[in-house]
Amino acid sequence: MLRIGLLGAGRISGVHATAITANPNSTLVAVSDKFPEVAAKLAGAYAAETRSTEEIIADPSVDAVLIATPTDTHSDLIEAATAAGKAVLCEKPVDLDLDRARRCQTAITGRKLPVMIGFNRRFDSHFATFKAALANGEIGQPELLSITSFDPAPPPIEYAKTSGGLFRDMMIHDFDMANFIMGEMPVRLSAAGSSIIVPEIGALGDVDTAVVTLTYSGGQIAVIKNSRRSGYGYDQRIELLGSQGLLQAANVPENTVIKSSGSGVVAAKPVDFFLERYMQSYRSEWDAFVETVMSGNTPPITLKDGVNALMLAEAATISRETNVPVSLDEFGK
Amino acid sequence: MLRIGLLGAGRISGVHATAITANPNSTLVAVSDKFPEVAAKLAGAYAAETRSTEEIIADPSVDAVLIATPTDTHSDLIEAATAAGKAVLCEKPVDLDLDRARRCQTAITGRKLPVMIGFNRRFDSHFATFKAALANGEIGQPELLSITSFDPAPPPIEYAKTSGGLFRDMMIHDFDMANFIMGEMPVRLSAAGSSIIVPEIGALGDVDTAVVTLTYSGGQIAVIKNSRRSGYGYDQRIELLGSQGLLQAANVPENTVIKSSGSGVVAAKPVDFFLERYMQSYRSEWDAFVETVMSGNTPPITLKDGVNALMLAEAATISRETNVPVSLDEFGK
Amino acid sequence: MLRIGLLGAGRISGVHATAITANPNSTLVAVSDKFPEVAAKLAGAYAAETRSTEEIIADPSVDAVLIATPTDTHSDLIEAATAAGKAVLCEKPVDLDLDRARRCQTAITGRKLPVMIGFNRRFDSHFATFKAALANGEIGQPELLSITSFDPAPPPIEYAKTSGGLFRDMMIHDFDMANFIMGEMPVRLSAAGSSIIVPEIGALGDVDTAVVTLTYSGGQIAVIKNSRRSGYGYDQRIELLGSQGLLQAANVPENTVIKSSGSGVVAAKPVDFFLERYMQSYRSEWDAFVETVMSGNTPPITLKDGVNALMLAEAATISRETNVPVSLDEFGK
Amino acid sequence: MLRIGLLGAGRISGVHATAITANPNSTLVAVSDKFPEVAAKLAGAYAAETRSTEEIIADPSVDAVLIATPTDTHSDLIEAATAAGKAVLCEKPVDLDLDRARRCQTAITGRKLPVMIGFNRRFDSHFATFKAALANGEIGQPELLSITSFDPAPPPIEYAKTSGGLFRDMMIHDFDMANFIMGEMPVRLSAAGSSIIVPEIGALGDVDTAVVTLTYSGGQIAVIKNSRRSGYGYDQRIELLGSQGLLQAANVPENTVIKSSGSGVVAAKPVDFFLERYMQSYRSEWDAFVETVMSGNTPPITLKDGVNALMLAEAATISRETNVPVSLDEFGK
Repeated sequence: MLRIGLLGAGRISGVHATAITANPNSTLVAVSDKFPEVAAKLAGAYAAETRSTEEIIADPSVDAVLIATPTDTHSDLIEAATAAGKAVLCEKPVDLDLDRARRCQTAITGRKLPVMIGFNRRFDSHFATFKAALANGEIGQPELLSITSFDPAPPPIEYAKTSGGLFRDMMIHDFDMANFIMGEMPVRLSAAGSSIIVPEIGALGDVDTAVVTLTYSGGQIAVIKNSRRSGYGYDQRIELLGSQGLLQAANVPENTVIKSSGSGVVAAKPVDFFLERYMQSYRSEWDAFVETVMSGNTPPITLKDGVNALMLAEAATISRETNVPVSLDEFGK
Repeated sequence: MLRIGLLGAGRISGVHATAITANPNSTLVAVSDKFPEVAAKLAGAYAAETRSTEEIIADPSVDAVLIATPTDTHSDLIEAATAAGKAVLCEKPVDLDLDRARRCQTAITGRKLPVMIGFNRRFDSHFATFKAALANGEIGQPELLSITSFDPAPPPIEYAKTSGGLFRDMMIHDFDMANFIMGEMPVRLSAAGSSIIVPEIGALGDVDTAVVTLTYSGGQIAVIKNSRRSGYGYDQRIELLGSQGLLQAANVPENTVIKSSGSGVVAAKPVDFFLERYMQSYRSEWDAFVETVMSGNTPPITLKDGVNALMLAEAATISRETNVPVSLDEFGK
Repeated sequence: MLRIGLLGAGRISGVHATAITANPNSTLVAVSDKFPEVAAKLAGAYAAETRSTEEIIADPSVDAVLIATPTDTHSDLIEAATAAGKAVLCEKPVDLDLDRARRCQTAITGRKLPVMIGFNRRFDSHFATFKAALANGEIGQPELLSITSFDPAPPPIEYAKTSGGLFRDMMIHDFDMANFIMGEMPVRLSAAGSSIIVPEIGALGDVDTAVVTLTYSGGQIAVIKNSRRSGYGYDQRIELLGSQGLLQAANVPENTVIKSSGSGVVAAKPVDFFLERYMQSYRSEWDAFVETVMSGNTPPITLKDGVNALMLAEAATISRETNVPVSLDEFGK
Repeated sequence: MLRIGLLGAGRISGVHATAITANPNSTLVAVSDKFPEVAAKLAGAYAAETRSTEEIIADPSVDAVLIATPTDTHSDLIEAATAAGKAVLCEKPVDLDLDRARRCQTAITGRKLPVMIGFNRRFDSHFATFKAALANGEIGQPELLSITSFDPAPPPIEYAKTSGGLFRDMMIHDFDMANFIMGEMPVRLSAAGSSIIVPEIGALGDVDTAVVTLTYSGGQIAVIKNSRRSGYGYDQRIELLGSQGLLQAANVPENTVIKSSGSGVVAAKPVDFFLERYMQSYRSEWDAFVETVMSGNTPPITLKDGVNALMLAEAATISRETNVPVSLDEFGK
């Protein structure tokens, strides 16, 4: 039974606490947060203790920590926890600062216990089925990938201020998905973006609508489209043209009810909330982490994967600002 | 080049005239109608002559007639035309009177030239693809057939008065479709029906909503559902559970445009008008008739098929009125 | 906090135990089964005690029992538990014997605590959305209901022997669904059925393929189609033509992945297993029961609903055997 | 009745001849081709004369010409025909050479009779419905447009050699579609492309897989994806995220038959052949041209539209070769 410390007690930590508890091989022993009363509330619901982050990391009886603290603390905590001999599952992104993430990657090199990054969407059953079909050769070789990722509605402007921008905060999921599906990093990236939904986002120098094109060494191409507002729910689609056909992962509708009338045939819109859409993937992610720790295998998503996604976010930010495609080689790919 | 006489110049005759003209092996030479000016208008549009029905049948240069006159004249005209050595394509139903249709069947027995009945839906490309998949063994043996056939809106009450009732006028298409798909006649039929849409239809002793269950000698079952009003277009669906899967023929939508918004995902409704839905099938039906005449083969839909569908309509009418299932053996199946 | 005793520890009891535990207002205190070791295993997983059924019913600290024992014990246990002052949630069907179920209904009349019957599908989110749309007037008045319910594959023949037959065991869900959707009992029922999938089922006098037509006092019609084998997963569809349009509840696919190739566009088949399809509805059913007990309201599904569904199953069995429609008035509707 | 001369008698001219004949206000009087016997064959089928292009243009009784000759003759013929006082419908693209097309545009300035360019897809009923919904405000303001256009299979390499390349030959349709939907020209364009399907296409310096991103002055973005090979039919989709929702135009399937089995739910693939997909749009295009000529209105697609699409093709070709986004202002937009 793995004994788990949960660092950070925000909204997503409730999801993680449930997943930790549901897995028969892990148990939640302690929760920390910079607001101890928030930690206490979550800990109480799962019969865990409330401690400081330092105490949890120092406790030799804790086998692994799940880092769900603010992004700018991730690298420090990964280094501290691995130094203390703990396995780590860290929420995405690794960092907002690519250099810092890379130093973290260097720092943990050679440490025995796994560090896994929480790109939970890889564990979504639909996307996992998609990837398995591709790996199984069902559409031949990949040629042209499209990822559509539209939020239901824009985030509060306060959130946008500290998010690191659309590319680091939102599209980073899609960069990792592209890396997951294509199985390699692109060689070149070109970004377009604008703020046409929320002027305040534009005033921050950020964008709310963006398209990034990735080109691979073999000539394959990927396109990622992001918008901060769909108006019809959480739009999360992937499609890949291969040498022998097309794979698509469609949206998950709220229900299967269809109404036909004189004004058309109306089906339900996609589910609206990311927790509804991805609850299962958070649980499967945790199960994969437990399996990784217990088996001693390489984690399915490594810190390098986290750095790679961040590298693409950084490159996209630059390309969008300069209107020039960026070669990933320049980024030390 | 087959020389064709068209008997009857109503709405559907315009469709037939176009089909006759479009086929490279047939030409429309004459049109008749009890209202000669109606015949003249149609004839004029296709550079054909206006004649009486008798003249057309008597003309030895006419190779075939297409009978699209009122239903109560069909049997007489089939007999007269075949006696005059003409091939015949006759609109459905053969007759409203089962006995009369059977006498017609007897009368033409042994005549050399083909008599084909115009159950055009067998030639609809979707239903033909459905039938071909079944014949090809794609779902194994048929077990449970469902036919849904809802008109967009009720007919004028004047039409209902002379239609022979829902079973003979509307469901007859579906009876023929069941015979086409199953490849045999049922042994028993049970009908339920009521008038819940148009009270005037009920006042005529007719129904506007009906369900008929057919049972076959091998234990297979078919269900036909009819309504005189869908409210969302022409609903024409077939599905068949087989021993190895399910086949469905879905509706044909007006267009492929889909709109997603906060109130759902809206697709176009099915096409509304039977001519829009079945224009292609009328043309293919004619082409099949021409092919039949030129090849000397048995027509794909014989007068016996027409009598069979009428027998089911008659049995359904009785079953609905008496609330008792009807054995088709009693009908001389 | 309601203290719950769970009677019966078969497969479905695991689902119930999870639901009881997940609800913040109920706790599982004891489990019984005729095989005590089976009860012990389930009890152990949920930190509950293993007791005899009699002990649980006799324990004044137990507020409610969930009856998931073999069907032929349901009536006895409902009577005993309500006599002991317990609220009851009883799995469907109430009984295989309509008279026994009616005596049970009489016996509990006037008892204060609720008896709810576990027709879980009413709580399926898709069907509940469907019902809400109807209740909301979105398609006007109901006219023609169709329920399609095909099992993925036939049950073991041993199961079929004690099931009470397709109408009491399988279609009873659909009878209750028809009652739920239409909001009233039909006045007449006509059944057709045959054994064309598993000869051994036919040898038992049972059927594996069946169609039942229900007619309502207002002229509305409902059709229920059952098959013991789809071959493509659990097919669970409802559609209702109303005076202003059509409502459909479609199947729940295994995933949203679609593959297009030269041989067509392939989507996932419906989920295969009833627990996967209806896990959520079992949980919502339990939540509704807890709410019923705590509020003192009438349960959303009463014992009378259970008797009504059983009455339709009985009538269908007779109609199928005699080939004669059955008037529900004769059944004391 | 407009008297029409058809210049060029290749495959697409058969479609045009049918459309000319079907319109009640136009008649085909003459056909020309550099291979007179090809012209004669087509002319014969429509009871038209075979003449030289020069004769047709010189004939004062010819009201309009339809130019369907090789692309490099378009500009010359447009100039000659308009000089001779004829209305012109010219197949796309106007020219492979942007400068030549612009000189043509200048040359015809001020001429009274209309010159319309044959971007037939604007008349496709699905895309026209899409555009009408947008114009009707159904999704608010356009924000992010995606056009997917995949050919079923690569063209013969001989065709590719003279096509002018993917951007001028294939994506030109999509450039015009973007202009049609967005109602304005973009300000910047960025192209990526590679040859990963047919090495011989790459050897010509051309691409078979390409993505172009267009940015508009208001910050809107459009993405066009092209592939020379889908493997599953003609993939022709458009989707547009607006401020109030999403519009999509989906593919047109070969039929509506769906087969469910243990291996999934299989629907028909999109129609394979462009003539099957766009036959209706060619006819509607012609009808719009006739209406334009008869009404004296501005054509729905002008020579300027043709030049605009060609400008985007030219810019895309350069951007792809240089890996640098291109400002359309530099192209004299």
